[in-house]
Amino acid sequence: MNESEFIKVSAPATIGNIGPGFDVLGLAIKKLADVVEARRTESGITLSVETLREGMELSCDPDKNTAGIAARETLAILGVKGGVDLKLKKGLPLGSGLGSSAASAAAAAFAVNELYGRELTKEELILPATQAEAVVSGGFFADNTAPALLGGATLTRSCLPLDVTKIGSISDLILVVVTPDVVILTREAREMLPKDVSLENFVYNMANTSLITAAFAKDDYSLFARSLDDVVIEPVRASLIKGYADVKENAIKAGADGVDISGSGPTVFAITNQRSRARFIEDAMLRSFKAHGVSATAVITEVDTEGSRVI
Amino acid sequence: MNESEFIKVSAPATIGNIGPGFDVLGLAIKKLADVVEARRTESGITLSVETLREGMELSCDPDKNTAGIAARETLAILGVKGGVDLKLKKGLPLGSGLGSSAASAAAAAFAVNELYGRELTKEELILPATQAEAVVSGGFFADNTAPALLGGATLTRSCLPLDVTKIGSISDLILVVVTPDVVILTREAREMLPKDVSLENFVYNMANTSLITAAFAKDDYSLFARSLDDVVIEPVRASLIKGYADVKENAIKAGADGVDISGSGPTVFAITNQRSRARFIEDAMLRSFKAHGVSATAVITEVDTEGSRVI
Repeated sequence: MNESEFIKVSAPATIGNIGPGFDVLGLAIKKLADVVEARRTESGITLSVETLREGMELSCDPDKNTAGIAARETLAILGVKGGVDLKLKKGLPLGSGLGSSAASAAAAAFAVNELYGRELTKEELILPATQAEAVVSGGFFADNTAPALLGGATLTRSCLPLDVTKIGSISDLILVVVTPDVVILTREAREMLPKDVSLENFVYNMANTSLITAAFAKDDYSLFARSLDDVVIEPVRASLIKGYADVKENAIKAGADGVDISGSGPTVFAITNQRSRARFIEDAMLRSFKAHGVSATAVITEVDTEGSRVI
Repeated sequence: MNESEFIKVSAPATIGNIGPGFDVLGLAIKKLADVVEARRTESGITLSVETLREGMELSCDPDKNTAGIAARETLAILGVKGGVDLKLKKGLPLGSGLGSSAASAAAAAFAVNELYGRELTKEELILPATQAEAVVSGGFFADNTAPALLGGATLTRSCLPLDVTKIGSISDLILVVVTPDVVILTREAREMLPKDVSLENFVYNMANTSLITAAFAKDDYSLFARSLDDVVIEPVRASLIKGYADVKENAIKAGADGVDISGSGPTVFAITNQRSRARFIEDAMLRSFKAHGVSATAVITEVDTEGSRVI
């Protein structure tokens, strides 16, 4: 088997949980993505990493970077003898709550499958990508890897056997995604979580998560907007994000229909279905963070329905 | 306003929770229904009750029976001066976990709206029906009233404002519904509930409830079958139903893809999509109850997609 030409694959950023759906829901978004260039080699996995943002430190050891681990796991499932040479162009900020490690894993798994005969479906690539995610995040969770591969909103039962369902999309959903300049590690954020949930809060979050599922299945923005409320995880994680209460309040005042934390944070997202409001919401959120001495970057985006793909 | 002719309305039995979706999901089923005959009167509410099963005791006081209360609440919302004469033909067993009080409430609310100009939608009738339910059950829960009115599977956030979404149906779902001869009162069953849920069980039930939502939205029996598992409420309520563990085990052995308790019980339901298996499952469940000295009645049925209607 000779070295092949490079192919280029992208995998989108993802919003884990989508508010109340802790460890269950995930959503792929446009405009932020990791890119992997990959070619077949005789054996083994080589990895180079190019970060598109300053100050990022990310391991180039293929056994420690999710791209390398996902590639190895995918090669193992395919049962092929060859290797792969990966160049990861890191478009997502690390530790941002936008599924950075999942995007790298998804792109690498997708690329390896493309290079070696495309024998696996996207659904089947979720397992190796999630195995890679587990190595770095300390838990077997597919709420980022599944939407990074499949696109749109996904529903996962992240136990073995892994069970993932693609739900759908909301065509007029606009997301204002704001990442403050603070790093939160998923593993540390998990350690803060409550051990128990009151029965009342259990029912409330379960209802909202199911309503959001129905909203994405029916392409119903209004149903989504009135269900984006989390009484279990958001109150705990908000404490890790300086200024969050004000950012949320000001986004709502600027016309957002809901605000929540993406994954374990610190990225915050607001929703609207009015294009004209998005800039005001973005401005209000950035100003609020600034008033708390926190610099932040923002992007106005929408649902990525395609997930991982060759570009 | 003169007395009118009687109209005849039916409202179906409902399976509250549909397994893991405690207080959130509900499903209308065929073959078991309450019927209300109703006509306009000058003022006030009169109620007679005819029970189709022996040994039932049900109040004919319109202020204590959900049919009477729902009629009163519906008249109040409509703002009309007239009254209504109701004849309730009770087709559902009481305290069975099949939404008996909700079916009476739904039928009466629907009938009053029919008699007085049909100004309210079915969705708008959920509020008065649920208010009636709250008087007798001790809590404001729409997981039976919503499907009894709308048909199919419904998703409710049972707080005010009440938020109800019709999800859909699963066309090849066959339900084996078995009611053992034991009365459990919703109010008493509620007192047994756990006060807290572990984070792990919270996530698991939330995933399954959302997956069941997706299954009904997509008409996907297989997705439903692998999501019908409740680790929060079923273990507690199972203790109220003599022989439940054996009934469940034997139903599965006979080919059922899942078994759970309907609402607060004691009715148990098993699912299959194979018509030929349903009789074997029914037989296995009845035998199991009998082996525990419990007599039971069974019905093989499917989803009622229509809900309350004039018959």
